[in-house]
Amino acid sequence: MSRNPYFQDIAGRYLFQELRERKRAFHEKNPDVHLISLSIGDTTEPLPETIRQALAKKAQEMGTDEGYFGYGPEQGIAPLREKIAEVLYHNTIAADDLFVSDGAKCDIGRLQLLFSKRAKVALQDPAYPAYLDTSILHRGKDSIIRLPCTPENNFFPDLTLAKKADFLFICSPNNPTGHIFTFEELEKLVRFAQKEKKIILFDAAYAYYVQEAQGADGKLFPRSIYEIEGADTVAIEIGSFSKMAGFSGVRLGWTVVPEKLRYPTGEPVKQDWLRIITTFYNGASIISQYGGIAALSPVGLKEMKAIVNFYLENAKLLRAAFEDLDFEVYGGIHSPYLWVRQKGKTSWQLFDELLHNAHIQTTPGVGFGTSGEGFLRISSFGRRATIQEAIGRLHAMHAKM
Amino acid sequence: MSRNPYFQDIAGRYLFQELRERKRAFHEKNPDVHLISLSIGDTTEPLPETIRQALAKKAQEMGTDEGYFGYGPEQGIAPLREKIAEVLYHNTIAADDLFVSDGAKCDIGRLQLLFSKRAKVALQDPAYPAYLDTSILHRGKDSIIRLPCTPENNFFPDLTLAKKADFLFICSPNNPTGHIFTFEELEKLVRFAQKEKKIILFDAAYAYYVQEAQGADGKLFPRSIYEIEGADTVAIEIGSFSKMAGFSGVRLGWTVVPEKLRYPTGEPVKQDWLRIITTFYNGASIISQYGGIAALSPVGLKEMKAIVNFYLENAKLLRAAFEDLDFEVYGGIHSPYLWVRQKGKTSWQLFDELLHNAHIQTTPGVGFGTSGEGFLRISSFGRRATIQEAIGRLHAMHAKM
Repeated sequence: MSRNPYFQDIAGRYLFQELRERKRAFHEKNPDVHLISLSIGDTTEPLPETIRQALAKKAQEMGTDEGYFGYGPEQGIAPLREKIAEVLYHNTIAADDLFVSDGAKCDIGRLQLLFSKRAKVALQDPAYPAYLDTSILHRGKDSIIRLPCTPENNFFPDLTLAKKADFLFICSPNNPTGHIFTFEELEKLVRFAQKEKKIILFDAAYAYYVQEAQGADGKLFPRSIYEIEGADTVAIEIGSFSKMAGFSGVRLGWTVVPEKLRYPTGEPVKQDWLRIITTFYNGASIISQYGGIAALSPVGLKEMKAIVNFYLENAKLLRAAFEDLDFEVYGGIHSPYLWVRQKGKTSWQLFDELLHNAHIQTTPGVGFGTSGEGFLRISSFGRRATIQEAIGRLHAMHAKM
Repeated sequence: MSRNPYFQDIAGRYLFQELRERKRAFHEKNPDVHLISLSIGDTTEPLPETIRQALAKKAQEMGTDEGYFGYGPEQGIAPLREKIAEVLYHNTIAADDLFVSDGAKCDIGRLQLLFSKRAKVALQDPAYPAYLDTSILHRGKDSIIRLPCTPENNFFPDLTLAKKADFLFICSPNNPTGHIFTFEELEKLVRFAQKEKKIILFDAAYAYYVQEAQGADGKLFPRSIYEIEGADTVAIEIGSFSKMAGFSGVRLGWTVVPEKLRYPTGEPVKQDWLRIITTFYNGASIISQYGGIAALSPVGLKEMKAIVNFYLENAKLLRAAFEDLDFEVYGGIHSPYLWVRQKGKTSWQLFDELLHNAHIQTTPGVGFGTSGEGFLRISSFGRRATIQEAIGRLHAMHAKM
């Protein structure tokens, strides 16, 4: 049998592709209806001035003898790695432990290659579908251990379930729930990984949405797993410019694989990761990398912050609207995502209600895992006018009911 | 064991990474020596005007409400796919069977996921290292079947060796040998795959270097495997803008997975490939994709052709020089690569001779497989002055011997 047998273990379509198809089908049947999407987590605000000028400048320079760039180092150009280390990690992470990627999703897939075909992987449930699907395509559905995260356990998994896992995907601020771990919770995760010899793949793609605020433990919410002492011996961190700088179409991210990280059997992970990226990858677009450097300049940071705050303001408006409609609402504070439910209704029932009565497209929570049943994920990415129009429709729908 | 055990099956370093390190070591020991590299196949000519303007324009537009682009379709934007289908395949390939990538190397790695862990893969030997290394990291060294391609068999493999393979990586014009298959040879390969139910992964990254000329069979040399009737039932083709348009740093390529292609067991391959790219990938940079569209415009094509011809002229000059030095010379006509040897010398002996006596860095052929022993790969990518300087050094070295 030459075909990868694990294709049979995964749903035929990737969730977001499925939603795109449904949207198209709705449009075909209702050509006059203007559907608002609060579904896909895709940025909508144009690139800030500093970034677009830097991208255009590098593009122009690529046409000159001095500015032309062929293959860059697979690990990413040094000035970008140094800037990420300095600005986003205050040099607590070495630039040499940073690997520039063409986006978090691509590195999630490549990271799978670090582990054997027999490795077991624990995932939060619900979770970003790429963790599950890349895991299944590499080692089948029996390799998966699900860690339910619901309001009932305050979105913190029962770690005893993860004891049989070799590695864990953990995401905070979480996609899809919008939930964020406190410092103490993240510390508990790191101690678990240290004690039980697990590797954590920590997805921090939404780190830039974390506000300077205290959690229930009285400590500031963490933006990086490396804020926890000793995390560099057990954790890989995945970062992204997509949601921070509107780079979802520009393609740029990074992964931190610390020098100190070891497999349970003692071999260093970093050298394997370097082997993987040099073998499976040829670096992010040089133009995008120069955009990344500009984003991390003082002016770029200010511009990015303004956009992140804009999406967070959208989230605040949407939170209020769903609360008005008697939804239970989670997330949307340190995250662009809201996670909402009305007890007694399934995800697809809520999805259809909003689609047909308010012409709003959302994402059914059950698409992110069985523990997502009953929820919808609401994305705050959108132009302000669109968000306001959506809120108007929600209120109008509510008034009619 | 959580670590991927196949890391033990591959050489610690990727060949080109190894060469980069050796170059650095030489520079450290000989800081005053200006080393010329005819080693890595990396483009050196600046991007043509049409392309760089298109890249800069899209970068600027990303800062506007109308021109901003978030996630593009994973398969690539339709105008680019349509342009590739029209210009490079004369619409013999449907745009819907084309998948835009961030480069051939990345898709080579992703294509591995189509096949089961037990699949066997046949590779030309010598071959571009990514075929071997991505294969090993997916299914170990015992999955590899090597097909020697040497002057002794006119670089055409003994296909009976491939009977136990499930899929074959085939590259023409070949990297590293610079050899090109005739129409008849390619036809023989396709017929073999049809009869024996194999899938061919055809790497056509250097297709744009193929000259309009007749092979020994009296037919024009093929640029695409789909010129052979029925190839769309057995072959995937991998294409790239890197060597055609100088995009090695811009990152853009494509893969053709025809609707008609089936696994030996009958399932269509295309739907699995769509699943892979939507799961493991988020599309090529939107800016790069607009660069690709410009490259395929009438003016862009003319500009690209001029650059390709420039590198081919380099190859011609280098061919003459190595022939003057009594090397056996292959390739360098439909390819930027020359494959040269002097009988009785190993690859690393030749490498050291040129490094120390002419201060020229090359690539040892044995790095591409055991059948590459005794050869050097000479890359024609370089500024003209550099190539001329290299040729001068070669002649000076020869005169002294």
